[in-house]
Amino acid sequence: MEKAAEFSDSVGIPFEIYVLSAHRTPEAAEQFARSAADRGIKVIIAGAAMADHLPGVIAAMTPVPVIGVPVKVSLDGMDALMAIVQMPPGIPVATVAIDGALNAGILAAQMITTGDLAVMEKLIAYKEGLKQKKVKANEELGAVKYRHRTN
Amino acid sequence: MEKAAEFSDSVGIPFEIYVLSAHRTPEAAEQFARSAADRGIKVIIAGAAMADHLPGVIAAMTPVPVIGVPVKVSLDGMDALMAIVQMPPGIPVATVAIDGALNAGILAAQMITTGDLAVMEKLIAYKEGLKQKKVKANEELGAVKYRHRTN
Amino acid sequence: MEKAAEFSDSVGIPFEIYVLSAHRTPEAAEQFARSAADRGIKVIIAGAAMADHLPGVIAAMTPVPVIGVPVKVSLDGMDALMAIVQMPPGIPVATVAIDGALNAGILAAQMITTGDLAVMEKLIAYKEGLKQKKVKANEELGAVKYRHRTN
Amino acid sequence: MEKAAEFSDSVGIPFEIYVLSAHRTPEAAEQFARSAADRGIKVIIAGAAMADHLPGVIAAMTPVPVIGVPVKVSLDGMDALMAIVQMPPGIPVATVAIDGALNAGILAAQMITTGDLAVMEKLIAYKEGLKQKKVKANEELGAVKYRHRTN
Amino acid sequence: MEKAAEFSDSVGIPFEIYVLSAHRTPEAAEQFARSAADRGIKVIIAGAAMADHLPGVIAAMTPVPVIGVPVKVSLDGMDALMAIVQMPPGIPVATVAIDGALNAGILAAQMITTGDLAVMEKLIAYKEGLKQKKVKANEELGAVKYRHRTN
Amino acid sequence: MEKAAEFSDSVGIPFEIYVLSAHRTPEAAEQFARSAADRGIKVIIAGAAMADHLPGVIAAMTPVPVIGVPVKVSLDGMDALMAIVQMPPGIPVATVAIDGALNAGILAAQMITTGDLAVMEKLIAYKEGLKQKKVKANEELGAVKYRHRTN
Amino acid sequence: MEKAAEFSDSVGIPFEIYVLSAHRTPEAAEQFARSAADRGIKVIIAGAAMADHLPGVIAAMTPVPVIGVPVKVSLDGMDALMAIVQMPPGIPVATVAIDGALNAGILAAQMITTGDLAVMEKLIAYKEGLKQKKVKANEELGAVKYRHRTN
Amino acid sequence: MEKAAEFSDSVGIPFEIYVLSAHRTPEAAEQFARSAADRGIKVIIAGAAMADHLPGVIAAMTPVPVIGVPVKVSLDGMDALMAIVQMPPGIPVATVAIDGALNAGILAAQMITTGDLAVMEKLIAYKEGLKQKKVKANEELGAVKYRHRTN
Repeated sequence: MEKAAEFSDSVGIPFEIYVLSAHRTPEAAEQFARSAADRGIKVIIAGAAMADHLPGVIAAMTPVPVIGVPVKVSLDGMDALMAIVQMPPGIPVATVAIDGALNAGILAAQMITTGDLAVMEKLIAYKEGLKQKKVKANEELGAVKYRHRTN
Repeated sequence: MEKAAEFSDSVGIPFEIYVLSAHRTPEAAEQFARSAADRGIKVIIAGAAMADHLPGVIAAMTPVPVIGVPVKVSLDGMDALMAIVQMPPGIPVATVAIDGALNAGILAAQMITTGDLAVMEKLIAYKEGLKQKKVKANEELGAVKYRHRTN
Repeated sequence: MEKAAEFSDSVGIPFEIYVLSAHRTPEAAEQFARSAADRGIKVIIAGAAMADHLPGVIAAMTPVPVIGVPVKVSLDGMDALMAIVQMPPGIPVATVAIDGALNAGILAAQMITTGDLAVMEKLIAYKEGLKQKKVKANEELGAVKYRHRTN
Repeated sequence: MEKAAEFSDSVGIPFEIYVLSAHRTPEAAEQFARSAADRGIKVIIAGAAMADHLPGVIAAMTPVPVIGVPVKVSLDGMDALMAIVQMPPGIPVATVAIDGALNAGILAAQMITTGDLAVMEKLIAYKEGLKQKKVKANEELGAVKYRHRTN
Repeated sequence: MEKAAEFSDSVGIPFEIYVLSAHRTPEAAEQFARSAADRGIKVIIAGAAMADHLPGVIAAMTPVPVIGVPVKVSLDGMDALMAIVQMPPGIPVATVAIDGALNAGILAAQMITTGDLAVMEKLIAYKEGLKQKKVKANEELGAVKYRHRTN
Repeated sequence: MEKAAEFSDSVGIPFEIYVLSAHRTPEAAEQFARSAADRGIKVIIAGAAMADHLPGVIAAMTPVPVIGVPVKVSLDGMDALMAIVQMPPGIPVATVAIDGALNAGILAAQMITTGDLAVMEKLIAYKEGLKQKKVKANEELGAVKYRHRTN
Repeated sequence: MEKAAEFSDSVGIPFEIYVLSAHRTPEAAEQFARSAADRGIKVIIAGAAMADHLPGVIAAMTPVPVIGVPVKVSLDGMDALMAIVQMPPGIPVATVAIDGALNAGILAAQMITTGDLAVMEKLIAYKEGLKQKKVKANEELGAVKYRHRTN
Repeated sequence: MEKAAEFSDSVGIPFEIYVLSAHRTPEAAEQFARSAADRGIKVIIAGAAMADHLPGVIAAMTPVPVIGVPVKVSLDGMDALMAIVQMPPGIPVATVAIDGALNAGILAAQMITTGDLAVMEKLIAYKEGLKQKKVKANEELGAVKYRHRTN
């Protein structure tokens, strides 16, 4: 989940990190979920491996949108994906790719930027950076490309 | 889940049925789970479709063994199976086949019969019944069988 | 996708519906995506079947968060789920369950309610409604339950 | 399967370990299964890889509840899971996660503790230990958390 | 399994049919398997749905080759396929397609014909019949084909 | 496969249809494949269900590009897809979606249009038609859309 | 495939090994398949990875029974399994587990032993050896077992 | 994708390589796709991992045939395969095996050779080379083979 934290930090979004478990510390998970909205939390990112239900359990106890990150431990992460994305009607979890913590961070930023121009600018700059990497890679491929072109 | 109820009834095991949801009525589910042991409940059978976490959530809050029944609603029930059987270390759910409510009832009876001769006798009689059906089917096949044998 | 529309309507969130295709009307999809933020759109819900890339293509062209709904047409919807949730790093799509349009509507409402008390109240009322259905179902089961209890 | 043995040992449940195979030593497996109830065995844990049928074969020959552990050797353990959990009606196997031997041990203890206060107390202490690990991890995260909180 | 019986009948191979279950009539299944070689049985075809282990259990108790037919009841027959084909080293089951009873009959005939010219001739005639159906279908397509050719 | 024929007809590409089988009429399949290039055939479309190998077998015997269409008969068509797309290095089959015969026809047209302006113009007109359908659907949605907009 | 060769050698079954490919050397594969019966070959074992069709292609051209071994190269061998076991009606391939070459060898021996007492005796001795390994493993576990028993 | 480049080079087909992304550089991808036909490009090979939509997005914007290569990064490449091969009706992508870049190069050459005898000759020579490798491997196996034959 580190990548989500790093990304949030890089665009200036304050956050908290907890180690919670729907199964091993259900009371702490509940307390966290029930108080989140009142404490001003805008988005929750919850990772879970196997059939761990943390994202869904938290989503059941808060109106704050919950982003779920399936973590790969067994079955290539397919069990975690199934257990997070296939939520029954009424309680959605916004699921990202298996081990997609970075995307969870970006998605959280996108949800929040609605009213925060400073974050939106940083988000746009971040995406521009992704594009520039591809542009540069393309320029470096120039030599290869032109050799064949003249064939 | 009806088949589990019918079976329990047929072997004389008293039971209760609730409509609970880990996501829609989390407080009721919790209250049920936390009080189960004290109320003398010996086994809990919980069915769940899609990524519904009821069996795991209950298992997290009681020392009573929990039997999970994956219910087929989407993906042939594979999502429900993944979300129930792949529980992380520490909180087991005794999972039966997709839509395997009857087997859940039998398994529950097996767990309980340890100290209850009357139930065990009924359980043995039930299994004997299954066998007799096969034996009869075999006898009815006799005609077919012997016709070919003389070929 | 009708259920997302109905839900949004029921909680008073204004919305627009378009028929777009990443493959058949790529220009219209692009125009929609690129102008969404400036037109004040807060969330985009995009459904897609098979390997249709609409949610990802739109997400690539807007800072507005995109919710993806895998629509079941082939392979039980597994192909649509794979093609939406497994987005590469940088461009997240908030994926809900296969055919989970209702949850997409609820998730969109949750993202928006951050600053809109009127919507949040309706959202809370909606979840309360879900809970009451379960509570009622439980009461109706009372008769069944007590008959067995006295066994 | 070692983890199941270690756990059982830690909570004081006496047990026996056998190397049996439904295919290579069917007679020994049968003898074990048929005599289990009379010898006072309360639960049987059987592990199996690939399509090995040990849990199901034993379950067919004893009224003692059987816990099946799918062991990962091929196909990420999915073949073993299918071959254990999808038992046909009449003969249940209580299935835990792929390579979930620890959970099998815990589940067995839960089945037995019904009438054994000493074991139940140890089981509760074990679960408390799991919770404390999470609580400690949370406290160690405190520094990280508060740095961001003040952002 | 009817198709296997019909095919065997059509090529003149005598056979017997039993209703056996590895789980519900384990003693009958064992008796059948252990006596098969001595009774002169050359091949055994065993069908099984879900995680039913009949083919593997029989294969463990006889030197006679066993053909397994996965029968589709749940999960599109994938569970039955996994539980039959993925036999551990030492005890093979010759697996055919899901619901492939006809192929099981043909395969059985192929195994037996080694020393039986009469059966082999019928088998060759059967395959020739399959080919002729295709040839006829091709001739009927002639009209369609030529219309386009002249385009 | 009818849709591929209809499409080819609609864009004026002459074609032939055969009923061939890699398994039941291997000689006819071989003769067809080996003579295809000399007879001036530019593309071959081969459909196959289950593990039928027609596309791959033909591809092995001709330099003409082969398009494979997985046909859904069992396992939702996943077996056919696997058996067609996963060709080993050296012998490619251009695979389209399960039951994607229409796309096979379009792909074939695209391969051929390289040097045929008349076909290319029809292909472009066809794609324009697809787009217009979406545009019209969008216009019909106008009423719905604006009702909500004014909320 | 080495294990099949070693096993056949160990029970005294003469065999030949070829490197054939349904796609790269289709003529050689055909020549081999068509001449097999006349050359006195009793069983053919064919391995294949990915969507390689060797077992099915050979099976289409010979009345000799063909055993298929799915070889794991990609997708955990699932593509190879699908492409071998799911043969359409008319042309069976006796499929064993993924990478199950040893079982293919044993199955071949079982098919042949019908009329060969010498081989059958070796086969029975081989299975006895498998059993003895388990029995020995059990005896070595004795110490562990009894320690716990006395708890 | 290197293998496709090497193969194209070896048969004398001029080509260009670009680093494009449907999500990170959508404008560059669009510009490339829209100008491809006019610039005389005959075939496009596009690789993509996870749910990256590059092949489909390009195919939507050009009449040039597009070959898609699923690249394995997660889920054994199954997500990439689903997201490429399961294109909806109207926009086909000619899909090859997971990580099948070499086959993509060969398929591209096959599409182009229609009117280019020089390339076709090289292609035929290449396939002959594949065959010779198998033939040689077979000759080297001769010793092994004959040793057993004389058994």
